[in-house]
This record gives sequence, C-alpha cells and structure tokens, in this order.
Amino acid sequence: MPAPIDFYFDFASPYGYIASHKIDALAAKHGREATWRPFLLGAAFKITGGAAPVAFPIKGEYFIRDFARSARFHGVPYKYPSKFPISSVAPTRAFYWLNARDPKRAKDLVRALYAAYFTADVDISDAEQTIRVAASAGLNADEVRAGINDPAVKELTKVEVEKAIAAGAFGSPYIVVDGEPFWGSDRLDQVERWLVTGGF
Amino acid sequence: MPAPIDFYFDFASPYGYIASHKIDALAAKHGREATWRPFLLGAAFKITGGAAPVAFPIKGEYFIRDFARSARFHGVPYKYPSKFPISSVAPTRAFYWLNARDPKRAKDLVRALYAAYFTADVDISDAEQTIRVAASAGLNADEVRAGINDPAVKELTKVEVEKAIAAGAFGSPYIVVDGEPFWGSDRLDQVERWLVTGGF
Repeated sequence: MPAPIDFYFDFASPYGYIASHKIDALAAKHGREATWRPFLLGAAFKITGGAAPVAFPIKGEYFIRDFARSARFHGVPYKYPSKFPISSVAPTRAFYWLNARDPKRAKDLVRALYAAYFTADVDISDAEQTIRVAASAGLNADEVRAGINDPAVKELTKVEVEKAIAAGAFGSPYIVVDGEPFWGSDRLDQVERWLVTGGF
Repeated sequence: MPAPIDFYFDFASPYGYIASHKIDALAAKHGREATWRPFLLGAAFKITGGAAPVAFPIKGEYFIRDFARSARFHGVPYKYPSKFPISSVAPTRAFYWLNARDPKRAKDLVRALYAAYFTADVDISDAEQTIRVAASAGLNADEVRAGINDPAVKELTKVEVEKAIAAGAFGSPYIVVDGEPFWGSDRLDQVERWLVTGGF
C-alpha cells in the first residue's frame, strides 16, 4: 500500500471538521489511509503571523457565513458554536493519549469531539467537557482525565504540534499527499486529482 | 433574464485571473451574465487588516505553489510573475475608462492584461506597459494614455473601488450571486450550485 496521507487539523477549525467527514473515504477510494494529526493553530499563527479568520472585520462575517454554507455544500451537519474559536489543547491531548494506544479509536474520538463542538455547542476547550464527550464515546472518564493531565502526554502533544508546524501546517485542514501540501477543505478536489494522477 | 453576477477581482490576483477564465461561461450556462468589477485589494486591506498571502512566512511559500497548481487544475496557462504582487491602479483605470464606452471590449482588455501579467511577466503596474498591452489588443495607445490620466476616470475608478469594498469585497475574486457572496476561485463549485438551486 502506498504511503498514508497526512491529515493535519485543529479541533476548533470548521473546515478541518468538514474535511474529517471526507478524508478517510477519499483516501480509501484511492487505496490509501489517512493519518490524523491534530495540532494547535495558535502555535502556528505565532510563527506565520496568521490569525483566526473571524478576527478580521468584514472578512470575519463572510467566514461565519461560509463555514455554514460549506458544511451544507458538503452535506455535513453544522451549527456555529456560541464560543468561537476556542483553545484545542484539551481535545488534542486526549487524542494523542488515546492514539498511542488505539489509533482507530482515536479517530472515533475526533469525530465525537468535532460533533460535540460543531453540532451540539459543547465547549471542548474545557477539559471536563472533552472528558464527558470521550466518556459518551465509550472511554473511561478517569482514564481520559489522567491521560490529559499526564506530563508525558503533554510532552507528546507538544512534540506532535511542533512536527505539524515543521511539516508546514499553517492552517486547517492541511493535507499532505506524497510530499505535496494542500490547505483547506476546498482543496479536496485537487487532493483527489493528485491521488489519481500522482501529480499534475 | 435574471440579474447579472457581480465579479470583483484585482488585476494582481492569481485566483482572480483563474476565475476570469471561468466566470462568463459559468454564468452563461445558467442564463446569466457577469458584470466585471476590478477593484484594488490594497484599499480593501486597509479596512480589513488583510495582506497579500505571500507576505506571510511559510504560508507565502504555500501560496506560490498553490497559485500554479490551481491554474493547472483549472487548465489555465500561468507563470509566476517576477514582480508580485503589484499595484493595479493603471490597469484598473484603463478598464473603467473603456468600460464606460464598451463593456464587452473592456472584458477583452482584462483578458489581455491578465495574460500579459500572469503568462508573459509584463509588469502592468507600469502605466506604459498597460498601454502597450491595450494597444496590442487593438486600442489606440494615445487614447488609453489620455483615459488613464483623465481626472474623471481617476474619480470613477475611486468610486468603483469604494463600491466594491462597500459590497463586501475583501479578497479576489469575490463573486456575488443574488446577494450571496463567494470568495475565491475555489468557490466556483458553490457558485454553480447556487445558480442551479437558488440557494442551499
């Protein structure tokens, strides 16, 4: 099997959320797997000088509209969270804690956390809310809490975020196919052509 | 015939250039026309706090790659100009001078100017280069020069740029269909669905 696709995303990113609904099926259609790699956009912004799109006047209003429309366009349920954006530290740590044990289940945890934030207005920046979502996805709350607070998991998360930024991830989603980077859920059509043709 | 689509773009925008190859055919396919409205991104950036994407570290390198790949994806000839970005004042004034006389020909002038900048590395921020391109497109060089320098044309251009910004144009291309705004050549698929369905 050819190398996996790298799927970098931030838990607070609507376009990352949309792509999370698409990337595994797209990869599988072309005989690939996707490695999911949550990171922290805030850490990337410190290097690139970027900022959350909603931070800008005029542009911000457009993005709030585009998030919802793009979700509808892709058939993904979506509700603009009452708190946006949020810190993704807690869910990202929960992911890397679980991913070290069971990568497949870690993807299910992402799906549950993304759905909680982008359809049910659950503030997953609150570690206790992240733990509650994880528990509703079948994990043991005390284990998740211990995982999030484990210094080794904190360190692993830091290292993974640094690796994402070193790989060029400056936005979310950031998808790398055989070394070729694609930014945005609106590049999935280009990702697909790249998978088919090996480059264009 | 239903209302025209508004197509806002900046002459220095690669994604505006790509969209200029697509928008009229897309509109015509759905019984529409497109009104072309060049504006000055720099003026919009003063209000929105935006900046040219290549101005950012890491992100800038990605965009240079994405410009070329997106052009290939859409089958549009493209060469990254040696001077980028540039001021679009001269070509924008040339457009509004001609548009007041002959809107159809003004579109042909856009096509010639975009091709000069994005395939032949002609620096159209230089008024004399804009005039040369216009002359090669069949216009009278002295008339174009007089048009660009006409205070009334300068004022008209200023007013049109202000109208674009008032309409929400903060990036290029910015396409408005029946009041619904779409930013980016990567939203042409959503523009098409909107034209088909009247909203989704």
